[in-house]
This record gives sequence, structure tokens and C-alpha cells, in this order.
Amino acid sequence: MCRCSSPPAATARTVAADEVVARCLELARISDEPGRLTRLFGGAGMERANALVGRWMAEAGMAVRVDAARNLVGHLPGADAGAGTLLLGSHLDTVRDAGAFDGPLGVLCAIDCVARLRAEEVTLPFALDVLAFSDEEGVRFGSAYLGSRATAGTLDDALLDAADAGGVTVREALGAARDASRAGESLLGYCEVHIEQGPVLEARNLPVAVVSAIAGATRAEVRFAGRAGHAGTVPMALRRDAACALAELVLGVEAVGRSVDGLVATVGRIEALPGAPNVVPGAALATVDVRHADDAVRSGAVAAIVARAEAIAAERDVTVGWRELLDTAAVAMDPALGGRLARAVAAAGVEPLWLPSGAGHDAVALASLAPVAMLFVRCAGGVSHHPNESVAVADVAVALDVLDRFIRGLAG
Amino acid sequence: MCRCSSPPAATARTVAADEVVARCLELARISDEPGRLTRLFGGAGMERANALVGRWMAEAGMAVRVDAARNLVGHLPGADAGAGTLLLGSHLDTVRDAGAFDGPLGVLCAIDCVARLRAEEVTLPFALDVLAFSDEEGVRFGSAYLGSRATAGTLDDALLDAADAGGVTVREALGAARDASRAGESLLGYCEVHIEQGPVLEARNLPVAVVSAIAGATRAEVRFAGRAGHAGTVPMALRRDAACALAELVLGVEAVGRSVDGLVATVGRIEALPGAPNVVPGAALATVDVRHADDAVRSGAVAAIVARAEAIAAERDVTVGWRELLDTAAVAMDPALGGRLARAVAAAGVEPLWLPSGAGHDAVALASLAPVAMLFVRCAGGVSHHPNESVAVADVAVALDVLDRFIRGLAG
Repeated sequence: MCRCSSPPAATARTVAADEVVARCLELARISDEPGRLTRLFGGAGMERANALVGRWMAEAGMAVRVDAARNLVGHLPGADAGAGTLLLGSHLDTVRDAGAFDGPLGVLCAIDCVARLRAEEVTLPFALDVLAFSDEEGVRFGSAYLGSRATAGTLDDALLDAADAGGVTVREALGAARDASRAGESLLGYCEVHIEQGPVLEARNLPVAVVSAIAGATRAEVRFAGRAGHAGTVPMALRRDAACALAELVLGVEAVGRSVDGLVATVGRIEALPGAPNVVPGAALATVDVRHADDAVRSGAVAAIVARAEAIAAERDVTVGWRELLDTAAVAMDPALGGRLARAVAAAGVEPLWLPSGAGHDAVALASLAPVAMLFVRCAGGVSHHPNESVAVADVAVALDVLDRFIRGLAG
Repeated sequence: MCRCSSPPAATARTVAADEVVARCLELARISDEPGRLTRLFGGAGMERANALVGRWMAEAGMAVRVDAARNLVGHLPGADAGAGTLLLGSHLDTVRDAGAFDGPLGVLCAIDCVARLRAEEVTLPFALDVLAFSDEEGVRFGSAYLGSRATAGTLDDALLDAADAGGVTVREALGAARDASRAGESLLGYCEVHIEQGPVLEARNLPVAVVSAIAGATRAEVRFAGRAGHAGTVPMALRRDAACALAELVLGVEAVGRSVDGLVATVGRIEALPGAPNVVPGAALATVDVRHADDAVRSGAVAAIVARAEAIAAERDVTVGWRELLDTAAVAMDPALGGRLARAVAAAGVEPLWLPSGAGHDAVALASLAPVAMLFVRCAGGVSHHPNESVAVADVAVALDVLDRFIRGLAG
């Protein structure tokens, strides 16, 4: 039922992509902190960001509201009230000292697609909602997906009782009228454009990829305890050096990560205690982060790492403790919706690469509400969560083309 | 010229050793800080400690003074004014949160020996000075041996210009009358009793050992720089993980340390940057500490570690930087004086073990002033610089016996 005009010229795409990038950069000047970009849930920056993006939504022809979880929602009605709603979007909150594109790019791409549909006087059978989530990064409350979980209707007591640094809980921050759930509505799906946050597209020389799944993650802290001693007076043969045990484990984690395709295993933090140059470390700790799109592969990798840690401890006469900090299951993307996105990529003249996401996204929370799909956009050097975050206008133009074809394809 | 009475009974030794340990523990209650033992140069604790130890010196029959570098000096004249002076002693300052024996044990053993000589009405031909140094640990000014270097007459501008946390320099702290140099005096030697601060005596089941040399030390900071990335999104094959490079080096340092007898090589501090569990480390740093009694062996070991770091960096496509923080040459003990000490050990019925010292001591500074010798006393678990520092009364009794025989031997 899609009444399309002729396909827009490539130059129009580039102009639109230019504007999307410019808007991301304009939005990046709105912060809770001077001198760097930080927008947290409920902060002054988020209020101003919602006002600006809300204006852009309205200019694109959408009805704009802020829901009970402070998500900004732009609504474009469809021709057929019974045809349901397609959800597009991403988040507007950021990490501390963030880049301009992680989150906003997806929101502004979606708004541009709506603007194009209106400009071309295309009326879709279904409604379109652009969701700009209030909290994905989880910086303020230490718990991710507050905005999208409110939308999915999956806020639970654990999340509602989470408190920020000032002791304010999510429950208190949201107030009494916190029901933003879209559960029970007729939803066609949720599609999110997001920067890759990794180097694969750059290495493969591709502008975009379709996300196959969001990897599950295990995060743990491992701690070796040996015996501290004076660095000058304890002979090597009498040492029970916890840092040496830890070093063996760091290399063991790397070896496990390299042993299976698509597996990543990372030691991001290391510390030796007491940490003085002239003291043989009596204790040492590290964080271990393991991710894979297949939960069984991840569990196997974690078990291998734990076994390696225990073997090292036994060999070196030290003890080892393993404390799991996080365990999230992999989230599959909807095969049918993903397939549509892949066909749109191919139609845009790009090889349709499927890529698992190692990072979490709002699609994780929305997967319980509707079929979900995601499109990754190449970012320079794979850098994210950093002011150096950067995307090429040409790649954004491809993403806009793909998203436009995807939306029209659903209607056709 | 030693007019000795009959040797004292073993029980008398034990009673004396009991008192030495009790005095160490009494002294340990005198601190700059409540709840833990910290005595820094010029602090209130040091003033009270000097008053108490000065009283014990006076009770042992010594003339007591505090010199221009705030060292406490007890003097016992000899029968022959031309026979010179034998120096005994150790230091009364401590690290922060120290144990009771590192330093004070040597001072109080020396005082006990003087008391015994007086009690037995022994007059030595030479004079005896018991030195209680005001600063060996170097905590306040970050520079060791302030007291003993002043005694040796080797205070230089670098040390005099060193400042404490409040900006006060050594020069200002000492004031104008800082000349405590004993250079030019007729000195027979310096002999220091000190806890081993290591586990070798415990492992060898011996109460004391003669120090062969004080090891030279190299201390350096090594830093690898690779490329930071998202722990979930950067595939293993595309990583340049600085923490993995560092882990290889930690094991390389251990391997070098194990490769030569008497060599110790330690990584005491490790850090990955930025240090977040979900970020592949873009940089990582460690401290490396290498010690051996033979400077050529130490230099060879340091070169091997640097070569290993460079090889790791080349293999992993990361960069490495090496910054030397400290390079001190080994200090030989005087063979003749050490030989006398070893014969005293044997005469006390103990196997005379020679042991290099991996830690620095006041003897390092005094080696330029006089022949030096040191006697190590076994300490529990090799623990030092910690409230758990502990010595056995029986071992202190042996040390007193050895020091007494050594002094009388010099006179005989």
C-alpha cells in the first residue's frame, strides 16, 4: 500500500546524511557538564536534548510527547488504524565524556526517514513511532535500558530500587505515573540504526551491516592470593607471587578468546596488591569479560577460563576466587525482520553482511515486546564512548537509504 | 687488652634478649599516628623515641647526645684514646604502619652489649658508639639514609633539596648546623644487627647470617601502548591489547629472575588503562625491580628484560617505553670485618651462613666512612614493613651472643 514517488537522487541522500551528522554534532553540545558530553537520565542536558529533538520530530510532521519514563516519542499515523505500529529509534542519553553518535544517530536517521516520507507525500498503511530513549547507558543508576525496559513493560523491583550516587532510586526518579509500557499494542517490530562500536566494518570496507544477534556476556572478577614479600629479600624459589599467577591467566583468557570464532574474552582491569614497586604482590585481581552470540559457546569459554585459573593456582600454590558480576543471555534478532533489512542492504547496492553485536542495545530490552532488527553503521577506528567517535557522511547516506527501503518494503 | 669475666650463662642471654624484644615493643607504641606505628624524620614520635632510647643508653653507661642530623648517639669511652671507635647501631625511623623490629632491634642489641660490658666491668681499648639514625627509610623526603649519610658526610645538594609533602626541604629541616659528619675520625668499623626481611633463614632453619653484600638495584617503569577498544565489539584478531603484552612481560621478568642464582626480579605494580571491565586496554604499565649482589649480573638481567619487552612489543604490534627510576650499585661488606662476624657466629655454635641483602640498610651509606659488617636475624615468615613483623627471643639471644663475641674479638 506504499504510494512511492521515484527514488530520490544520491545527492539528496548525501544532503540528508549531512544534516543527520550536523544534528548529531549540534546535539553533542547539549551536556550536563561543561567541556564534555555527558547526558544522564533526568539531567538538565536530557531535558534540553528532548526539546531540540522534539522540535525536529515536529518539523518532520510527527506528534510529539514525552512518556512516563521520560522517553521522547514522535508519532506518525498510518493510513490503516488496524495495521499496527513500526517502532524506530535509539537513545539520547550518553556515557560520561561521550561521542556524538552512539544513540543519537539512530534517532536522527529515523526522523530523517519520516521527513522524507512526508516530503514525498508517502502515506504508510501502518503508524511509525520514533522512540528516543531516556536511558540506555545506565550511567546514573548503574543499570542499563531504563527507558526501553519501561517501554517494554519489564521494569522490575530490582531496577526500580536501584539508586544513583545521591541515593535517589529509579522509583523515586520516575514518580507514580511511570507506566510507559507498550505491551499489548499491535507492533510490527522495532528497527534501530546504531554505530558498530567495533572495527569489523572498517576492516571489511563496508558501510553497514545487519545485526544477527546481541551477544550474551559474562563478567567476573578473579582474585589470586599468594604471599607478599620484600622484592629484594625473598628468593624467586620461595615466592608465591599473585601477579605472576594473574599474568598467566591474562594470557589464558586471550587464548580462550582466540580459540572460537566470534568469541571475545577480555581482561580490562588488572591490579597487584599492595602495589608497591619493592613488594612481591601478595594478591592480584582482574576483571574478565566474555561474550558470544551463542550462550553455550560463552558458557564453555567461561568454564575453560575458570579451569585455567584453578590450574594456575594449583601450580603456583596460591588461591583463586571467582566472583561473577554479570551474566546476560544472548538476544536473537528477528530472522524475518533481519532478512528484510538484509534485502534492503542488498537493494542499496551493498553486500549484506551479518554481524553479531558485542555491545548491548535498546533492542535487547525491546526483544520481549516486538520483533527486533538492527543496522550497524561503520565508525572510524571502531571508537565509541569517546569524543573521537566519528562516522562518514557517505555511510550515513547508505544507512538512510537502507532504512528508507526497509520501511517502504514493510509497507509494500 | 680485653679484660673479660667468665662467659655469661645462656639464661642471662635469654633474659637480655627478652628485654631487647620488650623494648622494641615498648618503642613501637611511640608513633606519629594513632593506632599504627609511623615514625618519620623530625616527627613527634621520633623525639619521644630518642628520649626513651637515650634513657636506655644512659642507663647502660653511655654519654648521650643528639647530633646535627638528629641522630641519637650513645658514647662509651675506651681505655686507649688512640684506639679509635667502633660504631654499632641501626635506625629508629620507620615506614608507615611499620613493625617493631626493622631498625630498633639493631639499636637495642647494641645498647644491651654495652650494658653487658659495663655490668661485667669490661673496659675495651677502643670507644664504642651506638648510633640510632634519624632517617633510613626515607619516607618523609622520599630519599633514604638521611641520618647515616649525614654521619658519613655524604649529604649532597640533591638530597638537601629533596622536599617533603609540605614543601619543606631537607636543608630547611636540618637547619644551619647540619654537620654530623664523622669523616676523618679513627673508626674501626660499623656493625649493624638487622632483621633479615626475607625467608631464607627460616627456610634454612638458622637464627642469624652474616651479610655478604648489599645487592644493587634497578627499578624501572615499563609501559606498553596498543589500541583501546570495546571489549564486546573488537574481534580478537584485530586487537592490540596492551595488558596482554604486559602479562607476557610479567612472566618474562619472573623467568629472568629465576635464571641466575641470587637474582631477584619483581613486578610489584601493574595497571591496565583505562581500566574498565568492558574496554580492551590501550595502555598498560608495570614496575620492574631487579637486584643482585653482582652489578654485572644485574645489568645483564635488566638488558634481558628490556630485550624481552621489545620482542613482545614487536610481536604484538604495540609500543613499549622503559623509564629507569633507580639504579644503585651493590655495596660490598668489609671482608675482614665480615670474617670476624662469621667467626663469632661459629663460636656461638651456629653454622656461619653468608647471605646477600636484597634490601638497603644504613651500612650502604656508612660504607664510604668505615669498614661495614651486618648480622641478619631470622624474622617470622620473612615479613617486614608490616605490623606482623616478629622475631624469636631465642634468635635475638644468639644475635646478642654473636655481637658480644664480635666486639670482644676486636678487642682481643
